Amino acid sequence: MSGSMVASAALKARVRRPALLKKLAKPEDLIHHFPNGAYIGWSGFTGVGAPKIVPMALADHIENNKLQGQMRYSLFVGASSGADVENRWARLDMIERRSPHQVGKEIAKGINNGRIKFFDKHLSMFPVDLIYGYYTMDRPKNRLDVAVIEASAITEEGGIICGASVGASPEIIQMADKIIVEVNTLLPSFEGLHDITMTDLPPNRKPYLIMAPEDRIGTPHIPVDPDRIVAIVESRQPDVTNDNAPEDATSQAVADNLIEFLQHEVKMGRLPPSLLPLQSGIGNIANAVIGGLAKGKASFSNLTVWTEVLQDSFLDLFDSGHLNFATATSVRFSPDGFKRFYDNWDRYYDKLILRPQTVSNHPEIIRRLGVIGMNTPVEVDMYAHANSTNVSGSRMLNGLGGSADFLRNAKISIMHTPSTRPTKTDPTGVSCIVPMVSHVDQTEHDLDVIVTEQGLADVRGLSPRERARVIIEKCAHPDYKPQLKDYFETAERICLKKGWGHQPHMLNSVFKMHTELEKTGTMKIDSW
Amino acid sequence: MSGSMVASAALKARVRRPALLKKLAKPEDLIHHFPNGAYIGWSGFTGVGAPKIVPMALADHIENNKLQGQMRYSLFVGASSGADVENRWARLDMIERRSPHQVGKEIAKGINNGRIKFFDKHLSMFPVDLIYGYYTMDRPKNRLDVAVIEASAITEEGGIICGASVGASPEIIQMADKIIVEVNTLLPSFEGLHDITMTDLPPNRKPYLIMAPEDRIGTPHIPVDPDRIVAIVESRQPDVTNDNAPEDATSQAVADNLIEFLQHEVKMGRLPPSLLPLQSGIGNIANAVIGGLAKGKASFSNLTVWTEVLQDSFLDLFDSGHLNFATATSVRFSPDGFKRFYDNWDRYYDKLILRPQTVSNHPEIIRRLGVIGMNTPVEVDMYAHANSTNVSGSRMLNGLGGSADFLRNAKISIMHTPSTRPTKTDPTGVSCIVPMVSHVDQTEHDLDVIVTEQGLADVRGLSPRERARVIIEKCAHPDYKPQLKDYFETAERICLKKGWGHQPHMLNSVFKMHTELEKTGTMKIDSW
Repeated sequence: MSGSMVASAALKARVRRPALLKKLAKPEDLIHHFPNGAYIGWSGFTGVGAPKIVPMALADHIENNKLQGQMRYSLFVGASSGADVENRWARLDMIERRSPHQVGKEIAKGINNGRIKFFDKHLSMFPVDLIYGYYTMDRPKNRLDVAVIEASAITEEGGIICGASVGASPEIIQMADKIIVEVNTLLPSFEGLHDITMTDLPPNRKPYLIMAPEDRIGTPHIPVDPDRIVAIVESRQPDVTNDNAPEDATSQAVADNLIEFLQHEVKMGRLPPSLLPLQSGIGNIANAVIGGLAKGKASFSNLTVWTEVLQDSFLDLFDSGHLNFATATSVRFSPDGFKRFYDNWDRYYDKLILRPQTVSNHPEIIRRLGVIGMNTPVEVDMYAHANSTNVSGSRMLNGLGGSADFLRNAKISIMHTPSTRPTKTDPTGVSCIVPMVSHVDQTEHDLDVIVTEQGLADVRGLSPRERARVIIEKCAHPDYKPQLKDYFETAERICLKKGWGHQPHMLNSVFKMHTELEKTGTMKIDSW
Repeated sequence: MSGSMVASAALKARVRRPALLKKLAKPEDLIHHFPNGAYIGWSGFTGVGAPKIVPMALADHIENNKLQGQMRYSLFVGASSGADVENRWARLDMIERRSPHQVGKEIAKGINNGRIKFFDKHLSMFPVDLIYGYYTMDRPKNRLDVAVIEASAITEEGGIICGASVGASPEIIQMADKIIVEVNTLLPSFEGLHDITMTDLPPNRKPYLIMAPEDRIGTPHIPVDPDRIVAIVESRQPDVTNDNAPEDATSQAVADNLIEFLQHEVKMGRLPPSLLPLQSGIGNIANAVIGGLAKGKASFSNLTVWTEVLQDSFLDLFDSGHLNFATATSVRFSPDGFKRFYDNWDRYYDKLILRPQTVSNHPEIIRRLGVIGMNTPVEVDMYAHANSTNVSGSRMLNGLGGSADFLRNAKISIMHTPSTRPTKTDPTGVSCIVPMVSHVDQTEHDLDVIVTEQGLADVRGLSPRERARVIIEKCAHPDYKPQLKDYFETAERICLKKGWGHQPHMLNSVFKMHTELEKTGTMKIDSW
């Protein structure tokens, strides 16, 4: 069918196993690999390194033939795929099931209106559960039907060289009966940047012998049985990313508080002068923290990074001379950031490794290295539980991501958040500090530090009632401080009297801030 | 002061470094090592291997001199110490701060009436945070003032041979300025059973090269600077334990459901025929599960165990011939179980290793080995979050223990619970399945299987709304099923309509079962 296609010179240079070029196909000729109900795996992580043209061809097919609702798939991607592709799939009602993370208004809408069955999962565990067969228990041999993988290149042995992300591609490839490879000839090849390990089943699993961010333990490519590659397509689509959330006065203030804390820890001998490998989430506070280190707000040098995703601010940190090495599972730069990265490839190439998410997020390595973990939640409560996923306990945003991989296992687990978030219905905004979070993703047993633009609460070694006092005092917005204090003191008085006072709560009114917000548009309340 | 004491023959045989015998002392002469406000570490885990006579002598001193409330300590023990000792300390108001786990009515009372500042912490992390200095931030060099360690023996080099538990003793010894050793000459020496590793600080930490439960990577003793040993005392007190909670019809039914599930997993190729290393919590369901395997309820053989604590039922499993090897941080047998263990030492000796809790509970090894984790919660909710610690969100029972170390990292994470628990005020009892747990220790991202005597819910790969249906259907008690279903369906209808329907909740009434129980004595309610 597709054997007669002629490969471009660019494609020939990238696909170094000539036999595979015989499988060159047009995306529109691959529709038959995707019957209704198929279980599909895609490459991609945080919107980069995902397949672009095959999923779009399938969407075209469904739109052109008015098959909306008749062709629905279970879709597994390391984390989020390209938002444009996924949103289109969601609009065309093509997603029956989706895991473990997504970004895009249309897909979030489908999840929250009940049309898409979504579950989020620790990103370190998702690919492992996939090879356990946990997500494919009704498929023959627990396998995925088909994988669509973007590649920079294919080696002589048929090994797949990933693009801007590794994510769950090794395990998706391992589990898929058929593999379609989109070779991206528009983007520079990422060959050499990756360190790939496959996931064994227990009892045959071995330690990850990584003792520093720069350690390599794998191969530059994903080994694959070429017979399972059913088609090669050439893609000339770029990764579609947005500009980064800009820093503002609030995020700068949060970052300043945090950097001051890190300086204090060094002074007290609890951190070495070059700190320990940094993990940083996504968002403007994360950018402000990394940006602050780049601008030399502290005298830290010889820094290293062990994280999930690298954003533009890490390029600044490299360029500042303070960052020695960084490793992640994805480089998600802005369009300008990617240009800067490609234009200065030689400057970054040997200071960077991309790894599978199983490795980048593995508790084994995060604990061993003593990573400093920093993430932004939806809300935090006075006893130091955090909600990373569901607004008002019910509305899914993007998913858990790697937040709990890092915060559970980091040497210092830091939640940074503005004390309030803007809402149209209250000039102060909604409080990010509440009596009890409406969904728990990080427990009180996981978090060491809560920091807002108001201040920093160091809760290490504190009992819950001590934590509540310091979190309200240091982190809450002044407009919410009195009512939070009132909740705590009232609950404390009632519970201690009953002899239930370890973690005082009034369960009948504990979510009053949330329910009042919905009813009246403000979290401000007069009494509990 | 104590140099003139004469060591008994039994003590001389156990303390093989003669110079240390010059430090032989009476417990009542050691009071000056415990000034008011001291930070103290004890050996011990689940009530075994804890110091017995020095803490009692200090309690005597305080009682005899009416110093209650004037001598208060920060007390750190791997997990629970002997309940008799700890309860006495609590009664005498000697505990200012305590972590990370406790068992004993008096200490729980002190925690819940606000007199004792308690925090629970993942048992794998507690000793590590201790060497980070996180619990001693106001002490010079972040060190503990004094450690009291029970030992079976002391080697020629001054190395300490632990007793029936290792727990956090390596790290407590590492962090203590002064060390008092209680050498227990009543109990048989446990020498040879332990595999001790110390905890390095990052960036110098290395992998734990353990690939199977029987792998040894350390030394038989805890290395210690003999100059820091300030006193040796001889103890002839046994470990005080209780009989095990007996199996009953409910726990047997839970166990049967669980064993049937494991058989199914083997049949489907998702578990090998000899399963994978088992972790089992404490309690009558755990005993019924392990007892069921011992009685040959399934044809599993060549089993191994990687767990935190071994109870009597594991002796049955050894004796059944189905168990090849077991490793834990503590052997907490009943009095009869200890007798059986000591009488048949040769039968168990080379099939058993005791390790530091840092190792027994380490995510690195639990994930690598693919442990099957099984624990009992206070309550579970319909979306598969679990509460392991706080009744009604506020009243501390014992602490988190290792539940989250295992359930977060196991290959299969299982929560087993009766569907109801007895209460005097309702013939059905209180429901262990609720709309939202009142405290979250295990998240929806951690649990794979919920099992009660009613049935088993396999929630792997399910979205929250699918989970709710299967958990209510399979696990809830029939008396509570209609109201739980009503909650879910009402919440689902309301939330989907709003476009907030990923994990439907009604925050204004989500804890109604809990609050009604307190008000009316029953969790049964007519409407939400």
